[in-house]
Amino acid sequence: MSNYFLRTLREDPSDAEVTSHRLLVRAGYIRRQAPGIFAWLPLGLKVKAKIETIIREEMAAAGAFEVHFPALLPREPYETTGRWDEYGDGLFRLQDRKGSDLLLAPTHEEVFTLMVKDLYNSYKDLPLSIFQIQDKYRDEARSRGGLLRGREFTMKDAYSFDHTDAGLETSYQAQRDAYERIFTRLGLEYVVVQADAGAMGGSKSEEFLHPTPVGEDTFVRSAGGYAANVEAFRTLVPESIDVTGFPAAQVQDTPDTPTIQTLVDSANASQPRPDGREWTAADTLKNVVLALVQPDGSREIVVIGLPGDREVDLKRVEVAFAPAEVEAANDGDFAKLAKIPGRPGLVKGYIGPWSAASAMLGAESATGIRYLVDPRIVDGTEWITGANEAGRHVFGLVAGRDFIADGTVEAADVRAGDPAPDGSGPVELARGMEIGHVFQLGRKYAEALGLKVLDENGKLVTVTMGSYGIGVTRALAVIAELNNDEKGLIWPEAVAPFDVHVIATGRDEIVFETSEAVTALVEASGRDVLYDDRRKVSPGVKFGDAELIGIPTIVIVGRGAADGIVELWDRRSGERTQVAVTELAAHFA
Amino acid sequence: MSNYFLRTLREDPSDAEVTSHRLLVRAGYIRRQAPGIFAWLPLGLKVKAKIETIIREEMAAAGAFEVHFPALLPREPYETTGRWDEYGDGLFRLQDRKGSDLLLAPTHEEVFTLMVKDLYNSYKDLPLSIFQIQDKYRDEARSRGGLLRGREFTMKDAYSFDHTDAGLETSYQAQRDAYERIFTRLGLEYVVVQADAGAMGGSKSEEFLHPTPVGEDTFVRSAGGYAANVEAFRTLVPESIDVTGFPAAQVQDTPDTPTIQTLVDSANASQPRPDGREWTAADTLKNVVLALVQPDGSREIVVIGLPGDREVDLKRVEVAFAPAEVEAANDGDFAKLAKIPGRPGLVKGYIGPWSAASAMLGAESATGIRYLVDPRIVDGTEWITGANEAGRHVFGLVAGRDFIADGTVEAADVRAGDPAPDGSGPVELARGMEIGHVFQLGRKYAEALGLKVLDENGKLVTVTMGSYGIGVTRALAVIAELNNDEKGLIWPEAVAPFDVHVIATGRDEIVFETSEAVTALVEASGRDVLYDDRRKVSPGVKFGDAELIGIPTIVIVGRGAADGIVELWDRRSGERTQVAVTELAAHFA
Repeated sequence: MSNYFLRTLREDPSDAEVTSHRLLVRAGYIRRQAPGIFAWLPLGLKVKAKIETIIREEMAAAGAFEVHFPALLPREPYETTGRWDEYGDGLFRLQDRKGSDLLLAPTHEEVFTLMVKDLYNSYKDLPLSIFQIQDKYRDEARSRGGLLRGREFTMKDAYSFDHTDAGLETSYQAQRDAYERIFTRLGLEYVVVQADAGAMGGSKSEEFLHPTPVGEDTFVRSAGGYAANVEAFRTLVPESIDVTGFPAAQVQDTPDTPTIQTLVDSANASQPRPDGREWTAADTLKNVVLALVQPDGSREIVVIGLPGDREVDLKRVEVAFAPAEVEAANDGDFAKLAKIPGRPGLVKGYIGPWSAASAMLGAESATGIRYLVDPRIVDGTEWITGANEAGRHVFGLVAGRDFIADGTVEAADVRAGDPAPDGSGPVELARGMEIGHVFQLGRKYAEALGLKVLDENGKLVTVTMGSYGIGVTRALAVIAELNNDEKGLIWPEAVAPFDVHVIATGRDEIVFETSEAVTALVEASGRDVLYDDRRKVSPGVKFGDAELIGIPTIVIVGRGAADGIVELWDRRSGERTQVAVTELAAHFA
Repeated sequence: MSNYFLRTLREDPSDAEVTSHRLLVRAGYIRRQAPGIFAWLPLGLKVKAKIETIIREEMAAAGAFEVHFPALLPREPYETTGRWDEYGDGLFRLQDRKGSDLLLAPTHEEVFTLMVKDLYNSYKDLPLSIFQIQDKYRDEARSRGGLLRGREFTMKDAYSFDHTDAGLETSYQAQRDAYERIFTRLGLEYVVVQADAGAMGGSKSEEFLHPTPVGEDTFVRSAGGYAANVEAFRTLVPESIDVTGFPAAQVQDTPDTPTIQTLVDSANASQPRPDGREWTAADTLKNVVLALVQPDGSREIVVIGLPGDREVDLKRVEVAFAPAEVEAANDGDFAKLAKIPGRPGLVKGYIGPWSAASAMLGAESATGIRYLVDPRIVDGTEWITGANEAGRHVFGLVAGRDFIADGTVEAADVRAGDPAPDGSGPVELARGMEIGHVFQLGRKYAEALGLKVLDENGKLVTVTMGSYGIGVTRALAVIAELNNDEKGLIWPEAVAPFDVHVIATGRDEIVFETSEAVTALVEASGRDVLYDDRRKVSPGVKFGDAELIGIPTIVIVGRGAADGIVELWDRRSGERTQVAVTELAAHFA
């Protein structure tokens, strides 16, 4: 350590918001170069290399071949699949000296697809799984959390190519199994949750989440085994009810009831519920107006109906409408909607169902504005909702009789106790960090880029693909998040930068001689040693550094050296044991 | 090979200008993604990894620690050192979503300097050498030659930090020694030549060139041991001569002599040389007008005088005037120079010396335009040169008497037979490819970025640095350039993607059983095997692929398998030897 390129810091970096960032900087593993962009010091690079080795081994075991694609790529393939635009501000774009458009790749589906198209042409060449461990770029709006969400980050991305759906299922499963082995070896507890595949254009997708209260993602799980992230959660659709036999809906004056709460209060005061119970927000149908902004800049207004006791979850809505960005409707939108030829306009606070509701609401023409509802709003459900007139609401409006929506949408928030869609019982909500993501892309990329092979019958068929990612630098950060105490990092053995930390304390030559002998002895056992040979540094500082750096096993060589005794210090348990040097070899054998 | 991700091509890629590019693509090592940007297939990645391992081992032996810096970096440090502008069009620049300027780093002096400044503060922390193996970016005007000059390429760059000049010398030597070991292990013949350190702002620099007729660089060497690239070659300056006693210069009519050849012919016809010999171009002083365009866009005109038998070497001039770009003066420049207040203007084809030549040439004022001369134009040399009047020249113009230049410049081309500046005799010219470059940067970067440490006396001193680069992907290409024949690549053992290529030929099960046994046996010896187990591919195609791929040792398992005999095929010599399977283990032991 007297000449190793390593400096520990006493102070936390001022920009560190999370533990891993704080400790990795303080302990000399990484240094920030720009927002979300880090340099790797020797200790950090060693941990990263160990993680990469584990991933490589498991990718090889899964039959995937390693390749390496450039980070700097031409625009065209991403233009063809639409992602040049869809990535929006998240994509780093640049031009070369000739004015050609280039990008720093955030992911590589396009060029892997083109490579296989370039080299393969028969089903006999498939299945194929190829992967790379490579630096990727995403211009995050807010690159907080140190390595958890960097703008330059290392990823393992794998892609599978099959000519049948069954083949894709097998390739997908092989990667999924490899992920389970990788995270187990890394000591990362994980939950595999259903994820939304929409953003990647795929058909099926699962996320590996590490459950932690500080996670950025919310997921749900039921005791019966259902697990999904909230974006992928699907509402359990209730049974429809025959719409005949309901009393007719009635428009009522409900002055000054622009909010759900004022409406419920007013209803309980003036329109007692036939069954004698109180009206609640769940009896009301709330209609929310949103604007969808497509990557090409076009703007579409949609109206979303959901039970009044639910809020719109923007993350779920964005997934539902991807790649559009979703905004609340603005005053301009409302102004336009207030006057619609041939039917009542929308009145803010008193918006009613839309579309096929025309008859009941006195409309004579379609509007072109989609009306989508929460999946719970099935035929035969009765609602109190706006009458599209200021100060008036409709009572007893029956879905399927008085209005028919243009479709359903998963826009409502998910709550603990909601039933899992597979019938496995109520879900609980938890937080997690994404550590891996597997997608069945299907044929989207192969179709867009023309990747076909001849099948067994000599017919050209479009290849079906999978895409499988692990954030290497993020996984490192998550491991650091999990493995620390107030004094510093505590690495699991599988990824520790060194296996053993030998500390010489004291000034006698016997201490340094013994330390060197101990180092040689431990190295002879095949372990990597960081030897703190600094002569002008106090034992207290050395111990503090060792705790901060977090190598799992520490050997302290001090006063006992004269008697051939050293101390073994387990960083995780804190336990210290005296051991004779003569017994060390056996200990490390 | 039946499922390995590998396809060999029958046709050369249409854009391949050099052998390495052609063969690496055809043999399935790399694929082009954009001009100067390549993807690495499994075979290529394996060769690259082997080269990197050799470099890592020798860097560790040289006491350098491995780190890893981002490719995407903020503008500021490069602005501080001036390189944000100096790199001109060669730098990939971009902006993030917030409008901050970023670059893709072409080299990392700035951020390494800042890192050390950030962490170190005492001479006791030094010396320090740190390196990385990392992908770099340069927007080459013409990215020809495949991997020889890529726009995204892998480099090993190391940086040393010392607080004394002697320390820098030691650190420099350690890297230089490591380079010799690396290139020896890679089987790359090299010449270490003096190089110009100017572009990096340094004080001393050497290049490792691989001598080859297809090299991009020209270097000179003398039998006495001098070696330099032409940019760094320094002219041996002749002795000055006492300027008294020369006859006075005379302006003569020399109609229609705008070129050196017409001037020499005219002089020989009308002005016989006093010693009776013929005038030659070497007796004339040619004055060339150049425009220097600085990175900030400002334009300066300079006039360069050199013996008429020499040409301006633009590469040498560019080094002399770096970071300015050098252009020939255009008509606009000449128009301006034709009329200069207080003295004769410049007349194209009849330009004479400048500056202090004012007296003789009738000028009364300085022009602000520098007049620089070749180092051979020492005091007491006599010249025929332009008189700054159309159709007139001056004869017997004596340097140091009739004109005094503003300085000298190494602008003239270097020729075989020119004397080496160290007196080691005449030089010969040769071509080479740069495979490594070592610089003593001195204090330029540390000064610009404020890297100081406390010295032994508690005084702040600026750190002195070295910078040391090897192009990893370029080295791979050079190895491929060197090791091939008309049939394909022939890898040296140290970097071959696999050690042994086992080929099963024939249809009998015994062939495949024997091949598998041979593969297991060779792998048991610690060697990596590529096994061609394809069942529907002819022996001829398999042999062709093996020759193209270039693994040094090939084992052919064919008809002899039934008798326990296989054939060892040495790819380089072409020699084939029959060996009993029972003897193979001993052979590979």
